[in-house]
Amino acid sequence: MNLDAVQFDEKGLVPVIVQDAHSGKVLTLAYANREALTQTLLTGYSTFYSRSRGELWVKGATSGNRQKVLEVVLDCDQDAVLYRVEPQGPACHTGAESCFHNPLSEAAGHPPLGEVLERVYRTIQQRLRDLPEGSYVARMHQEGLDRVLKKIGEEAGEVILAAKNADGEELSWEAADLLFHLLFTLAELGLSPDDLARVLWQRNARDAAAGSGRVPPV
Amino acid sequence: MNLDAVQFDEKGLVPVIVQDAHSGKVLTLAYANREALTQTLLTGYSTFYSRSRGELWVKGATSGNRQKVLEVVLDCDQDAVLYRVEPQGPACHTGAESCFHNPLSEAAGHPPLGEVLERVYRTIQQRLRDLPEGSYVARMHQEGLDRVLKKIGEEAGEVILAAKNADGEELSWEAADLLFHLLFTLAELGLSPDDLARVLWQRNARDAAAGSGRVPPV
Repeated sequence: MNLDAVQFDEKGLVPVIVQDAHSGKVLTLAYANREALTQTLLTGYSTFYSRSRGELWVKGATSGNRQKVLEVVLDCDQDAVLYRVEPQGPACHTGAESCFHNPLSEAAGHPPLGEVLERVYRTIQQRLRDLPEGSYVARMHQEGLDRVLKKIGEEAGEVILAAKNADGEELSWEAADLLFHLLFTLAELGLSPDDLARVLWQRNARDAAAGSGRVPPV
Repeated sequence: MNLDAVQFDEKGLVPVIVQDAHSGKVLTLAYANREALTQTLLTGYSTFYSRSRGELWVKGATSGNRQKVLEVVLDCDQDAVLYRVEPQGPACHTGAESCFHNPLSEAAGHPPLGEVLERVYRTIQQRLRDLPEGSYVARMHQEGLDRVLKKIGEEAGEVILAAKNADGEELSWEAADLLFHLLFTLAELGLSPDDLARVLWQRNARDAAAGSGRVPPV
């Protein structure tokens, strides 16, 4: 850990972007002084400097909504920092998942894929846990693991047909269906979308090292 | 557009987080004054205020690496802004995709899933375009669309078997294989991971509106 490169401003602060390490969602913009950065790196939990209170601020110290820090990255001109975190609760004091929730423009059509997948996955987990009446996931789950696995086969077939029919819109739908049931299957076995990221990333690294050979993919 | 809520600092600036709207990658931390925010909202392209040059800065005006802005969001206490963009080139003056590339901590195991999927997808696109010797994607592509579609069926079968065997590590691998070939199929038909996000998000919204009924999923 070498903080000498960090360019703190005239108040001794550097802005910190906090990002969910799994969904990629931007959670908060906060500030750190040298001590807060040091504490973050030493403890592995988000620590900032509160400009309003004028003191060190261990995120979640009172609310319990701590943020486990997986990675700290400095930008190219060393005057901004990124924390990649696993949040243990909402980032925002309003109870919202992210502090960024006041649109200044027309909303984009949808969030980035990573956020969408994480949201869908958490919904599946909640349905598996609470088994709410009328829930598709709950009903499938109660009929046993084979039920969702049959859907994997069925949706794979529908992806193949949509592709053969060169029907882009149909393919988008069937591919989304297949991906949904894949997340459902992962959830049934206690796995998460992050396991997919891990495996694909390992292969990507190996592929880059091996040139363009058959890795398993690319 | 109402910028009256924005809390500019004593220099008339507000920090702006720039995020790739598709991969979710954090690209840059920059600053905007009221005029830069107004220009961004009016033109639909990232505009900042350059603190070093003391002037309005239309990102990519000279380099061509413009950023199409899909959404502008203000945070809970109105003193930080998020631009969600489609970058038309590297965000960093070093040529790197993102300005955040100097790790201060041990690197996390892997980036968020959204970034990984986008990276894998772009690699597939590049292989389909350049057909480099020894590339798995290039070879499969040259054998025709049926070749990758057969893999969809095959990998779906392997997901089913891994799940039936309750083998989490095997399931992670097979699910990643299936997802890889799904991205490959999308690329063959000119679709992108963003199409998956769009469809899944539409369903999520409909599901939320309809309670917990069968939507298509959840």
